[in-house]
Amino acid sequence: MRSAILNLEESKIREVANAGIGRSDVLAFWFGESDEVTPDFIRQAAIDSLNHGETFYAHNMGLPYLREGLARAMTLKHPQHDAGGGVHADRVAVTSGGVNALMLAVQALVDPGDEVVAVTPVWPNLTAQALIMGGTLRTVSLKPKDGAWTLDLDALLAAITPTTKLLIINAPNNPTGWTLEPDEQRAILAHCRKTGTWILADEVYENLYYAPSEHACAPSFLDQSTAEDRLVVVHSFSKSYLMTGWRLGWLIMPPAMTGSMGKLIEFNTSCAPVFVQRAGIAALERADEVTPRVVAHLKACRDALVPELQALHGLELAMPKGGMYAFFKLPVAGDSLAIAKRLVQEAGLGLAPGNAFAPEANGWLRWCFASKDIARLHLGVERLKGWLEKNPA
Amino acid sequence: MRSAILNLEESKIREVANAGIGRSDVLAFWFGESDEVTPDFIRQAAIDSLNHGETFYAHNMGLPYLREGLARAMTLKHPQHDAGGGVHADRVAVTSGGVNALMLAVQALVDPGDEVVAVTPVWPNLTAQALIMGGTLRTVSLKPKDGAWTLDLDALLAAITPTTKLLIINAPNNPTGWTLEPDEQRAILAHCRKTGTWILADEVYENLYYAPSEHACAPSFLDQSTAEDRLVVVHSFSKSYLMTGWRLGWLIMPPAMTGSMGKLIEFNTSCAPVFVQRAGIAALERADEVTPRVVAHLKACRDALVPELQALHGLELAMPKGGMYAFFKLPVAGDSLAIAKRLVQEAGLGLAPGNAFAPEANGWLRWCFASKDIARLHLGVERLKGWLEKNPA
Repeated sequence: MRSAILNLEESKIREVANAGIGRSDVLAFWFGESDEVTPDFIRQAAIDSLNHGETFYAHNMGLPYLREGLARAMTLKHPQHDAGGGVHADRVAVTSGGVNALMLAVQALVDPGDEVVAVTPVWPNLTAQALIMGGTLRTVSLKPKDGAWTLDLDALLAAITPTTKLLIINAPNNPTGWTLEPDEQRAILAHCRKTGTWILADEVYENLYYAPSEHACAPSFLDQSTAEDRLVVVHSFSKSYLMTGWRLGWLIMPPAMTGSMGKLIEFNTSCAPVFVQRAGIAALERADEVTPRVVAHLKACRDALVPELQALHGLELAMPKGGMYAFFKLPVAGDSLAIAKRLVQEAGLGLAPGNAFAPEANGWLRWCFASKDIARLHLGVERLKGWLEKNPA
Repeated sequence: MRSAILNLEESKIREVANAGIGRSDVLAFWFGESDEVTPDFIRQAAIDSLNHGETFYAHNMGLPYLREGLARAMTLKHPQHDAGGGVHADRVAVTSGGVNALMLAVQALVDPGDEVVAVTPVWPNLTAQALIMGGTLRTVSLKPKDGAWTLDLDALLAAITPTTKLLIINAPNNPTGWTLEPDEQRAILAHCRKTGTWILADEVYENLYYAPSEHACAPSFLDQSTAEDRLVVVHSFSKSYLMTGWRLGWLIMPPAMTGSMGKLIEFNTSCAPVFVQRAGIAALERADEVTPRVVAHLKACRDALVPELQALHGLELAMPKGGMYAFFKLPVAGDSLAIAKRLVQEAGLGLAPGNAFAPEANGWLRWCFASKDIARLHLGVERLKGWLEKNPA
């Protein structure tokens, strides 16, 4: 087997979850997933499709009707894109989940030995994909400041040189909740145009944004870019439509990449199932019935959890603007992974360890606040508080 | 973008299909897919799962119950495997289709620059995946003899040296219908043990086998191998269960690969949807109600089509032992792709061009005989006959 694969880190999040196996009393906030079932009408669209016998291969790029719907939806969110021209359907590919979209983009762009710059802490899948393709990874770390992880823009731009093939950036960010500002996106894009660097923007959390905004979404690279920019933007149905288990995502790419993307989809998964795509169409057509409610509830979760955590003595945490995570530093020295395992065993509290996302985030913990029942969050804080009292700094 | 990706060949099959766009009168036999909908009870299992709210992330490797069912099913087919120990569930990974399983195996095994040997003609996805991963491809061609493509075993063994990282072999073969014999599998395995070469065996057509056999399937590398052999065997629900559009497959690997495979699945698609896996469980549990009927019908299709084609003057074709394709050479000179397009336009007949599968198969055509209505096959032959009369050799 390849050493590049053997050397890929095992998921530290899963290691913590494994520590909870056999314990039914653990309050689990470790995975990035709501505990709410997909809405009925979305499931019904898939059921109808199955009943109609839609069980055959589909076009590699997705159902034309879904691609058009996604293009329209993205254009409504980002009317400034391409000098107001918006997103055209031939630049949209439907994928088997957001992670699959990211992998396809990395396959298209990263040759063995290519330099890839990634902003960390970040969901480990993003950096693993570049390593699978034989890329050389260089990371630029956000810096914690009063509990908020912030970007040193100059340091990032200095790290991106003409030898940098790809910049991988996820904002709103998992795990930190950090978001990019439009002027930062403009500066990064202008710099990458000069260096010839591609940008892979994981914007799957764009709708999970709690600051005031014109189109109810986080600032996007799409707002600043043209169709021809070396930019791939990745999205997913998982978070905004409560569809994690469906494995349905999409990406937006320059028109010249479309032909190659069709080939890559053929060689990776061939297509997303038609009945899953029908569910995506239903979700998109009735997005107003789902996403605003989901986002409002997540905001309520955030606003319930974060102040309670901030009130714990010595804990570092700023209110996140986007995403569905509270990322905080405990006033306890030690390895995040070890602490997360102890929290499972000693307090029945399941959190993700910061060092799952970057070595520099050791000491931090990620709490997914996507909880249908907000009381679960309160109960979790009680457990953390009790544990901290028994384990003072 | 990577030149390795830009250089990947576009599908010549799709090019032919595109030539038929807008024509409703084309009899299409170009894709490798039955025209029969997935059986009701399989669809119902997915519907029940959706109704029960199974819309969350699943384990990377698949539902334990499905993995156990697959291990049992493979052991029943291949009781000799691992000296009679059979296949254990921890060696099974559930994947997002057979093509996804193949891609995962290639990601695990092929480093940039690694030499990969493939037996051709073959489904182009198999060789494309190695190129995506930066492998160096070397092909060993089957040789046509009286209309049957046959293996020169000595030539294949000579091509596999200690520098060969991976042998890719698909039998029963798409497109030729060629199958491997047990003594050939033994010889290849013994040779690869000496050279340290991995074998990636695409055996998705194993149940579509029409020669007498003890376990109603084609000879498999599993029959000859142990758990520890450098062997990955890939399977799919697509053909045996009429589930092409579901994108559900599996692979069997040595136990030492299981941990890495879990990581690769996480970084590629994360998991197959639970409701799709429930359909797979239903298919497996009631396989006797589907697969024997599908295979008997495919045999009837083959036995109807092949003699009629053989009766056409000058056409070269042997009866295939396995698979769902008639692969034949027309008594007409010229490029397969051009001929396939002319057949669409001039005869309303949709076939796949041989040079989609290997340059040496130029002049040949692939006819997928998986047709619910056997009369369609007769009508197709009539159209071919009429076209040949107008276009004599």
